[in-house]
Amino acid sequence: MSPSLDFWLEYASTYSYPAAARIGALARKADVKVRWRPFLLGPIFQAQGWNTSPFNIYATKGRYMWRDLERICGDLALPLKPAGQFPQNSLLAARVALIGFDHGWGEDFSNAVYRAEFGEGKNIAEQDVIAGLLAKLGVDAPRVLEQAQTSANKARLRSQTEEAQRLGIFGAPSFVTADGELFWGNDRLETALAWAKRT
Amino acid sequence: MSPSLDFWLEYASTYSYPAAARIGALARKADVKVRWRPFLLGPIFQAQGWNTSPFNIYATKGRYMWRDLERICGDLALPLKPAGQFPQNSLLAARVALIGFDHGWGEDFSNAVYRAEFGEGKNIAEQDVIAGLLAKLGVDAPRVLEQAQTSANKARLRSQTEEAQRLGIFGAPSFVTADGELFWGNDRLETALAWAKRT
Repeated sequence: MSPSLDFWLEYASTYSYPAAARIGALARKADVKVRWRPFLLGPIFQAQGWNTSPFNIYATKGRYMWRDLERICGDLALPLKPAGQFPQNSLLAARVALIGFDHGWGEDFSNAVYRAEFGEGKNIAEQDVIAGLLAKLGVDAPRVLEQAQTSANKARLRSQTEEAQRLGIFGAPSFVTADGELFWGNDRLETALAWAKRT
Repeated sequence: MSPSLDFWLEYASTYSYPAAARIGALARKADVKVRWRPFLLGPIFQAQGWNTSPFNIYATKGRYMWRDLERICGDLALPLKPAGQFPQNSLLAARVALIGFDHGWGEDFSNAVYRAEFGEGKNIAEQDVIAGLLAKLGVDAPRVLEQAQTSANKARLRSQTEEAQRLGIFGAPSFVTADGELFWGNDRLETALAWAKRT
């Protein structure tokens, strides 16, 4: 049995973009099975008294993050053209992603969402934008959007977010190994995979 | 002429401990000349409304940091036994370090401070502790402690801290290249050295 790693991602999170782009190939190379776990950072931030991203609250840190992301995306040849609002409302994307991971297109959808949001300056809160990404993946967009908005699926995302909080997750991306080790940040991806392999 | 890199360190900062332990060998290997720049994070934190470390303000993040540091120090075979107060008052250590960097023992002193503080649970705010570290380095402790507390030296540390703030530094360790690129965190050391080399 391959070792496994939970990849906790938030569709509004900047550093989740390069992590999502990198994790597939790195995990295959390391022979680690990755489970993608979309969640929402909003409720977790609110619980520590923040009503927006800390990158907005602490402007110096925010400026640094955008420059750092520019360097990272440059190295990976990932397009970077964020537009307008930050953070974007990622609720719809996360709900749709849960359906995607049930049906094998979650990983491609996730990478498409990040690329639209941070690489093309699109607003992923708009249903049309999400529908366009789904159509490109050859998925029945109207049907999936309906499934995404059922109360069962909404509850599933809430419970996944609560699980993240119970695990001590406070930012994204985060990685959790089978033995409960938590790693935070795109820059911890390799370390998390190495830890997963040795347990 | 070798490329150069400014290493901004704070003696109360946990992640500065592994960075200080690693930077010497990595910089020699990369043929980058490192200038160690001690500064104080306190005034910078105060300017963004914090009266202690964010690792104390945000408990979940704090718990993560200590576990993360444990893993990092484990990999480097660096002792880790923090005691009592966090963050410690690093004012005296920083003032003494400025004298040390004038006289060639600043790097050894810095590593000795971190090891005493995080590896042996000593309080670096105590003059006796600092005097003990100086004595072990073969330095005239009473004379250095007197030089460290002159108003000229105090002003030097203040102005270095103001420079850090002007550079957009908001945490430690930070690295700044000759062309003004800022890198934050022990995990960015290799990237900062690579950037310094290519400029």
